[in-house]
Amino acid sequence: MRTLDHWTQSDAAVTAEFHVGKFALLVDRKPLVKFNPDQQSMKLCILHYNDMKYKLADYGLSVDLPNSALLDADQTNTGDFIAVFGSSLRTVEMPDDSPISIDKVRGELAETLGGSFVDLRRAMLTLENDTDRNLLARMYSLTRWARTYRRCPKCGAALKMRASKSAAACITCDRIFYPTFVPVAICLVSNRANTHVLLIRHQRTVNTVYTAIAGFAQMGESLEESARREVAEEVGIECDKVWQISATQSWPIPEGSLMCAFRAIADSRQKIDVCTEELEGARWFSREDVKLAYENSLRDPQLQFAPRTKSVIQQLRYIPPQGAIAHRIIKEWLEEKPYV
Amino acid sequence: MRTLDHWTQSDAAVTAEFHVGKFALLVDRKPLVKFNPDQQSMKLCILHYNDMKYKLADYGLSVDLPNSALLDADQTNTGDFIAVFGSSLRTVEMPDDSPISIDKVRGELAETLGGSFVDLRRAMLTLENDTDRNLLARMYSLTRWARTYRRCPKCGAALKMRASKSAAACITCDRIFYPTFVPVAICLVSNRANTHVLLIRHQRTVNTVYTAIAGFAQMGESLEESARREVAEEVGIECDKVWQISATQSWPIPEGSLMCAFRAIADSRQKIDVCTEELEGARWFSREDVKLAYENSLRDPQLQFAPRTKSVIQQLRYIPPQGAIAHRIIKEWLEEKPYV
Repeated sequence: MRTLDHWTQSDAAVTAEFHVGKFALLVDRKPLVKFNPDQQSMKLCILHYNDMKYKLADYGLSVDLPNSALLDADQTNTGDFIAVFGSSLRTVEMPDDSPISIDKVRGELAETLGGSFVDLRRAMLTLENDTDRNLLARMYSLTRWARTYRRCPKCGAALKMRASKSAAACITCDRIFYPTFVPVAICLVSNRANTHVLLIRHQRTVNTVYTAIAGFAQMGESLEESARREVAEEVGIECDKVWQISATQSWPIPEGSLMCAFRAIADSRQKIDVCTEELEGARWFSREDVKLAYENSLRDPQLQFAPRTKSVIQQLRYIPPQGAIAHRIIKEWLEEKPYV
Repeated sequence: MRTLDHWTQSDAAVTAEFHVGKFALLVDRKPLVKFNPDQQSMKLCILHYNDMKYKLADYGLSVDLPNSALLDADQTNTGDFIAVFGSSLRTVEMPDDSPISIDKVRGELAETLGGSFVDLRRAMLTLENDTDRNLLARMYSLTRWARTYRRCPKCGAALKMRASKSAAACITCDRIFYPTFVPVAICLVSNRANTHVLLIRHQRTVNTVYTAIAGFAQMGESLEESARREVAEEVGIECDKVWQISATQSWPIPEGSLMCAFRAIADSRQKIDVCTEELEGARWFSREDVKLAYENSLRDPQLQFAPRTKSVIQQLRYIPPQGAIAHRIIKEWLEEKPYV
């Protein structure tokens, strides 16, 4: 831990470790992953610098310090540490009249590197383990932050970015800026008898996926107050009781969030008043309905069989896959008993 | 709630509400408060625009939209809403050879307004209720954020700040920036028998005040991982078990944090390895010692009787006052029994 801490703060150390480091890749915001044989889950591909350098060069791409962030320090069998970087690259856009599509080019590059490029959200939802999920969240958020923070927001002078991407200092006024991420309260509301939960469907979500209510925390409120406020704003329901459970998760979409899990109890006789700007629907579902959706999300985490037609959107067929904190909260609720 | 949400997003609404609103004040970063008769706790002073306008003008000060942030919407007896603003003002510095001190000027202004200006941290620690603490956290953080975010960090163009201070948009590239605050994991570590807790004293703290271990969360880790990492970094202790408890608190110092409470269990036979950059000391204390310090912090929340001499710094005499989340976690631990 202290090795990583030292590297994080030293540009010289990051530069020295770069050419002997290991790399996770984002190309056009898509992480390079390797599917497990069952095709249902995946791992991040982590490549040694020398194993990918020439392969990337063939496609006109290269990892370098400006497009990379320090993610971790891995201990080897001999006790030494090796730096893990994340690099965010962009392929050159094809002219409109090109016979070759960008997808095809990326597909070939992925094959050369021994993996596949997949959608960021899909990877976050179905990566096999939390270590990979954390690395991906960190890689996406830090490289994105480093691309955005180039000028001092106070005085407009240039920001000098640390090689690790852990901070940037203004060359004129000396202010230091750190990568930011916002706490999000995500809250599963159950009825007083604990037989039903209130699930919502977002605008533009894949049809038939329902999930828990979530929203950004605001400055000057406790997270419990955020959860209570979000439930009131999104579905017009006042909760009897709101409590935090010991589960949080780093999430890179849209920019960098920290999902913090809550449970709540509310009177289900209240009228649901859906905030239609954000939501397409909200309903109370029974334990049996939720259990079926939970099993579907385990069996088909890539949502390959999710219907896309408008006619079935009222149905609950899926909850989010196992990589989402919502999945975990709903699973824990399913293991509880009704209150008597 | 929806009234506040509407106002937050509408510059026209904020402008219309401003001259009929209520105001909390920061002058030179010091909040205006009113002490309770016991002198141990305080309330925020909230003043109507017309009641303070001329009094401020006598001191060359004025509240206006640029130095104010929208904090809340209060419902009156008639069911209408009144906007609550927070304004951050600066007095003019006195010349070095002036016979009048700035403290004296602020003191006279405070008296005219019917309150006192106190140190921000002191107010956060000893305000009587959480509503005031939240308002103060929001006022300080939002006005500070609005003073800092004046240029787009991506392209350097001017940022157009919302009148409510809830967001700022780049006039050139249309990016929107929101006030940020960082999650902090604060963790109370107890031994396996639950008879002792590990408390630390920060560098530059008031002597004899000990508290729980805390540190900023990093991107790409869960808060539980943050808590575990901070304990390892600050005191070199590996925890057996770490869990989050349902307690969070918005905190404006140094910039804007969300304190999230954790408990942990660790083997107390491990060697304590203090990170001397941040800490002056760390020790295991018995339930009896902690109870005495807890009682001192209740009896003397303003730390008026805390010794300032170096010779007694090894003693635990105080824990943080009731406004700090550390106080609440330690209090809850004191109510527990040893494990058998």
